[in-house]
Amino acid sequence: MALPRSPLAPDHFPDLPVIEGLKFSTTAAGVKYKDRTDVMLAVMDPGTTVAGVFTRSATRSAPVLDCQAKLAAASPSAHEAGAALLVNSGNSNAFTGHYGQTSVAEITEAVATSTHLPQERIFTASTGVIGELLPHDRIVTQIDTLTDTLDPAGIEAAAEAIMTTDTFAKGASAQVTIGDKTVSIAGIAKGSGMIAPDMATMLVYIFTDAKIAQGPLQAMLSELCDRTFNCITVDSDTSTSDSLMLCATGASGVDATDHDGFKQALRDVMQDLSHQVVRDGEGATKFVEIQVTGARSAADAKVHGLAIANSPLVKTAIAGEDPNWGRVVMAIGKSGAEADRDLLSISFGDVLVAEKGWVSPTYEEAMGAAQMQKQDILIQVDLGLADGAATVWTCDLTHQYITINADYRS
Amino acid sequence: MALPRSPLAPDHFPDLPVIEGLKFSTTAAGVKYKDRTDVMLAVMDPGTTVAGVFTRSATRSAPVLDCQAKLAAASPSAHEAGAALLVNSGNSNAFTGHYGQTSVAEITEAVATSTHLPQERIFTASTGVIGELLPHDRIVTQIDTLTDTLDPAGIEAAAEAIMTTDTFAKGASAQVTIGDKTVSIAGIAKGSGMIAPDMATMLVYIFTDAKIAQGPLQAMLSELCDRTFNCITVDSDTSTSDSLMLCATGASGVDATDHDGFKQALRDVMQDLSHQVVRDGEGATKFVEIQVTGARSAADAKVHGLAIANSPLVKTAIAGEDPNWGRVVMAIGKSGAEADRDLLSISFGDVLVAEKGWVSPTYEEAMGAAQMQKQDILIQVDLGLADGAATVWTCDLTHQYITINADYRS
Repeated sequence: MALPRSPLAPDHFPDLPVIEGLKFSTTAAGVKYKDRTDVMLAVMDPGTTVAGVFTRSATRSAPVLDCQAKLAAASPSAHEAGAALLVNSGNSNAFTGHYGQTSVAEITEAVATSTHLPQERIFTASTGVIGELLPHDRIVTQIDTLTDTLDPAGIEAAAEAIMTTDTFAKGASAQVTIGDKTVSIAGIAKGSGMIAPDMATMLVYIFTDAKIAQGPLQAMLSELCDRTFNCITVDSDTSTSDSLMLCATGASGVDATDHDGFKQALRDVMQDLSHQVVRDGEGATKFVEIQVTGARSAADAKVHGLAIANSPLVKTAIAGEDPNWGRVVMAIGKSGAEADRDLLSISFGDVLVAEKGWVSPTYEEAMGAAQMQKQDILIQVDLGLADGAATVWTCDLTHQYITINADYRS
Repeated sequence: MALPRSPLAPDHFPDLPVIEGLKFSTTAAGVKYKDRTDVMLAVMDPGTTVAGVFTRSATRSAPVLDCQAKLAAASPSAHEAGAALLVNSGNSNAFTGHYGQTSVAEITEAVATSTHLPQERIFTASTGVIGELLPHDRIVTQIDTLTDTLDPAGIEAAAEAIMTTDTFAKGASAQVTIGDKTVSIAGIAKGSGMIAPDMATMLVYIFTDAKIAQGPLQAMLSELCDRTFNCITVDSDTSTSDSLMLCATGASGVDATDHDGFKQALRDVMQDLSHQVVRDGEGATKFVEIQVTGARSAADAKVHGLAIANSPLVKTAIAGEDPNWGRVVMAIGKSGAEADRDLLSISFGDVLVAEKGWVSPTYEEAMGAAQMQKQDILIQVDLGLADGAATVWTCDLTHQYITINADYRS
């Protein structure tokens, strides 16, 4: 099925800076798709530290379990050897029993042999259909070719190789000046369905030439993930496979540990990539930002925000450009977090729709309808209880989502 | 918008027994809809006890708050006076501030005056659009007409008057012999969207001529609600308004307190009505039963069952008749309740699809596809952990759900 490019897609893939100490290659291994690339390899120089955040699903895939075990067991000197990532699309190697572990072992062993890296520094991911055996031989036979064609400028091709139902390749970057040197960050992502928060909900790979040890790298990634990727949702469903990894090659020679500017730049890259995933939400025609303020706590604000973002009735109203703020009230009411109907205010864009438990006296339906006709929609909710705030992002729920998911085995 | 009758609807409204001590009337008050009835009144004789379960939404409607307050404050002799229910469709009187309370007061006062019942025994409900003021005068002016036209056989007309996006009126009944006498139960319901569990998720009125005091009546209703109405979901959204009430007129003279046969019959009626709500789920083309066994607890089993039932990806796969059991695995994984991938078994109908974390060696895609072509779908999941079990019911997610909710302000 050829899906049309999302109407919310950016015009083109961004120019990403080359990250020193990092090379990519891709190939068409025919895992499932025909006539397109479906495997990417990234190889990183000695000194590269690696951090990861993974799905919290109880039915995690074999590659996720392997990555988690390797990161947990990494010795303080593990980064000295370098690292590699191998990712395939078309098959998620999830719910494939012991055979799934065999596939991961075969692939990581072949990459280790070909790249001369230790097997415990080879991280894999697989995305696509669940429950079918991964034909790993098709990948293994391509690995020497991948190793022979590594290219520092290959990141866009890598972003394309990991796509499944994505309609555009996703990339983002930032550069930060630290002292008299420039540190670069470049990231790629895939994901457009089975996207919900509270985990790393897609495949995301971010690279930097900054120098940061694994411990602080992991801490920074986990903290920023909670405010970016864990604040987006397309359909409330959570993948068994998805993974976010951050690799710091250190090739710039600049130590960015605890550097505020670097952290902000990394956050910008993560937020940009997370928004691109929403903008490629299956069937999406609207990008929706939901700002919740005045909640009892930040956690409560996020619960309310996600209840609104995941409500099929809110999402279909947005698809229909219907300023149906009653459905926003409904979602707040059902969220389980504290709310007082008579303190609640709701705005669409800059239009105050409801305040203190009732429709605003200044509100007219045409004002809300005009806001709903925009492509980027802003919903603001103030609970009026305390200072808890959170922002979440989602898309609308359209006929195209049904078409994609009722007719296509992804 | 005229919606086609659900393909899952029963052939006709059932013949319901007349409940002694109970009369109905309906009228077309023009609250919102034209050319159809939209208000129903039920008046019950002295001696009628009343129990209720209501939405747990934090943004509950004014009628819900009024019913809850009246039931909580009812004295042990409150039933001696009798009771009345007045329900309108077209407007939910939710998120209407203090004006909402005024509407409830005006209506209940008028019903009390007209029926000579105390105002604290008049219970109301409203269903329809949220956030618009209820034009209660249109109802109040009809109340004497309603009182003058009360009819013991009016239950089917009552079921029709409370419909909103429903495509068929819903009724169910049972009769139980206790000693040498027959006790009857008859119930009606409305609801087809904004349906999710963990509350009374629609309007449901059940009547019996059995004699049961309010305390045990409430205990029985709450217990059975957890295993019937709180085990269904259409779209995971929870109404601000919905209410389940059980009224026992006592007119049979038969005390059914703690009578197992009566309780089973009541459960049957509640389950039947709850299934009819699912069968009228907005856009539904499939009725889906999800049986979860082997969970750590019954509560865990219900969490898993609802995660499957609410997953947009599972629901769209069912709509597309795709035996995509990988999405069932995904939903179990994300539910938050305990699961061990390698102990998990999944069946569609009588076809074992997956066992012990992997596709079953006997499974072929055509076998699953044949199950998915049925109108009533059974999904069985065994967690293999302990003895916790639960059954939930849902429908598929189709283009018609999007059409109804993107284009119609309900």
